[in-house]
Amino acid sequence: MKKLINNPQDVVRESLEGLALAHPDLVRVSFNPVYVVRRDAPVRGKVGVVSGGGSGHEPMHGGYVGRGMLDAAVPGAVFTSPTPDQIEAATRDADGGAGVLHIIKNYTGDILNFEMAAELCQMQGIDTEAVVINDDVAVENSLYTAGRRGVGATVLAEKICGAAAERGMPLKELAALCRRVNENSRSMGMALTSCTVPAAGKPTFTLGDDEMEMGIGIHGEPGRERMPVEGAREIVARMTEAILADLRLPSGHSAIAVVNGLGGTPLLELYLLYRELQRLLEARGVVIARRLVGNYITSLEMAGCSITLLHADEEALDLWDDPVVTPGLRWGA
Amino acid sequence: MKKLINNPQDVVRESLEGLALAHPDLVRVSFNPVYVVRRDAPVRGKVGVVSGGGSGHEPMHGGYVGRGMLDAAVPGAVFTSPTPDQIEAATRDADGGAGVLHIIKNYTGDILNFEMAAELCQMQGIDTEAVVINDDVAVENSLYTAGRRGVGATVLAEKICGAAAERGMPLKELAALCRRVNENSRSMGMALTSCTVPAAGKPTFTLGDDEMEMGIGIHGEPGRERMPVEGAREIVARMTEAILADLRLPSGHSAIAVVNGLGGTPLLELYLLYRELQRLLEARGVVIARRLVGNYITSLEMAGCSITLLHADEEALDLWDDPVVTPGLRWGA
Repeated sequence: MKKLINNPQDVVRESLEGLALAHPDLVRVSFNPVYVVRRDAPVRGKVGVVSGGGSGHEPMHGGYVGRGMLDAAVPGAVFTSPTPDQIEAATRDADGGAGVLHIIKNYTGDILNFEMAAELCQMQGIDTEAVVINDDVAVENSLYTAGRRGVGATVLAEKICGAAAERGMPLKELAALCRRVNENSRSMGMALTSCTVPAAGKPTFTLGDDEMEMGIGIHGEPGRERMPVEGAREIVARMTEAILADLRLPSGHSAIAVVNGLGGTPLLELYLLYRELQRLLEARGVVIARRLVGNYITSLEMAGCSITLLHADEEALDLWDDPVVTPGLRWGA
Repeated sequence: MKKLINNPQDVVRESLEGLALAHPDLVRVSFNPVYVVRRDAPVRGKVGVVSGGGSGHEPMHGGYVGRGMLDAAVPGAVFTSPTPDQIEAATRDADGGAGVLHIIKNYTGDILNFEMAAELCQMQGIDTEAVVINDDVAVENSLYTAGRRGVGATVLAEKICGAAAERGMPLKELAALCRRVNENSRSMGMALTSCTVPAAGKPTFTLGDDEMEMGIGIHGEPGRERMPVEGAREIVARMTEAILADLRLPSGHSAIAVVNGLGGTPLLELYLLYRELQRLLEARGVVIARRLVGNYITSLEMAGCSITLLHADEEALDLWDDPVVTPGLRWGA
């Protein structure tokens, strides 16, 4: 294993120290227990938006803390759920008196620990709501999951609900909005190479020189099919058809699209994939009204990509355009 | 070779088509000849700022086109200089009547072709100035270079001169500012793995499982030394000492720092490297007043990093803070 680190056990802590040093205008980092929080948290009267999960899905979640997105993020060890005490402390710090929304990717450990933390918070009088994101159409159940995995829709939910919270939307309404974003989103990913978890020291899996894994999970867990590598056009078609088989997105309607790199894929390839996606959707009469092209939910240095589509209504588009000021996503201010 | 592409010959064109589709609010792309230009170019009365070079150093240069940075960017094939006719056409399109600044990385082909284009433009009555960036302290001459290579300082020069041009700085003054940014900047890079140029189809070089290349060039050209991999702290110290041996950066002074990924290195590692850099500079009394941590000038999917330091005066810091609205760098608007 070759990595630019000191000691595998210290990677997440030392990296978060770097995040805090690099963005003192945007975030604070607590180290005991570990979480990232908006510089100006708690924001009085605003619903707090909190997410979290294993580290290594970058810039998620710490990179999405800031005005217009998350109030706090709870990073676990690499590819490992955060603990209830972390989530509890982050939730308390994010609570401005109007309650806190937990946005949780559908992984069994994450859900259990967020539930436990929510109970602890409720005993302290903090109102919480939880929404589980499960947008990945690749597999019905997986290594770490009962039901579909939560992937790229998490980024969309964090952005859109972050904007709505900033506008003053109350907790119950915000949770309903988050559920709608999840219900209207689907994703599918694929990989050309594995990544290497620092503490493991060796690649999570191996793929042949001419193989790809279609439907890969963001921890490298198996997908639908291991198959010979195809061209970008065929790969995009395969992923998009899988998504559209499960998401009603009629001609004339609008989508927010994410063409996401898994960490080791150049922008040259991601923009090329975006071209294929837009052409394919245009041929079906679907308009990509907004989009992200880049690394938004990675799997460390894995080569590969995922596509997320949100069937977007006017409310989602309007909230999407609101300002966001975080280390990983920034516009409008 | 496994890449998310259709045909190796079409990679740059198809990727630029994707860039144009993804950012219609920011840029236009010309395809005959190929260049990227600000949506609203030419801006009347403003000096145009134009850069260019081989593709694959992402998001440079096309990703830096927009308000507050470049008026136009001229991408060559992957790791290959753009041609004079491309540069000429981009310069004409970027000229708002106040002349055009060419920011050129020090590679022999780039310099020759920018010179030829400048002559053609001058014959048409367009005033041009050229500044060559040569900030890489790793080697004195290299495979594609007479003198030091131009790397990370290019990003700083494009941002700072883009801001100054936006404020209305005239051409001669802008060229002098660009030379000062270059003179006050130094960089050094290192790699853990090679990248693969699509048209070549195989890795540019090979490194052993426990080896790194210290002083690597952004095309994978050899550096100072091939050596056993060290820890992040030692690697940062090695690069920073090489920079500081050549850049006067006294205690009490300020720097703008770039901790740059070469494409295949996770943010987890880049933020960890930033922590090491800030601690090291703090111990010498140097303040990092502004910074970038992420992929700003890559070598496709190479694993590795570079550090750039600019000894920054008040003018540089003030221009740095101006708004920038490009696909690859965005704040303040």
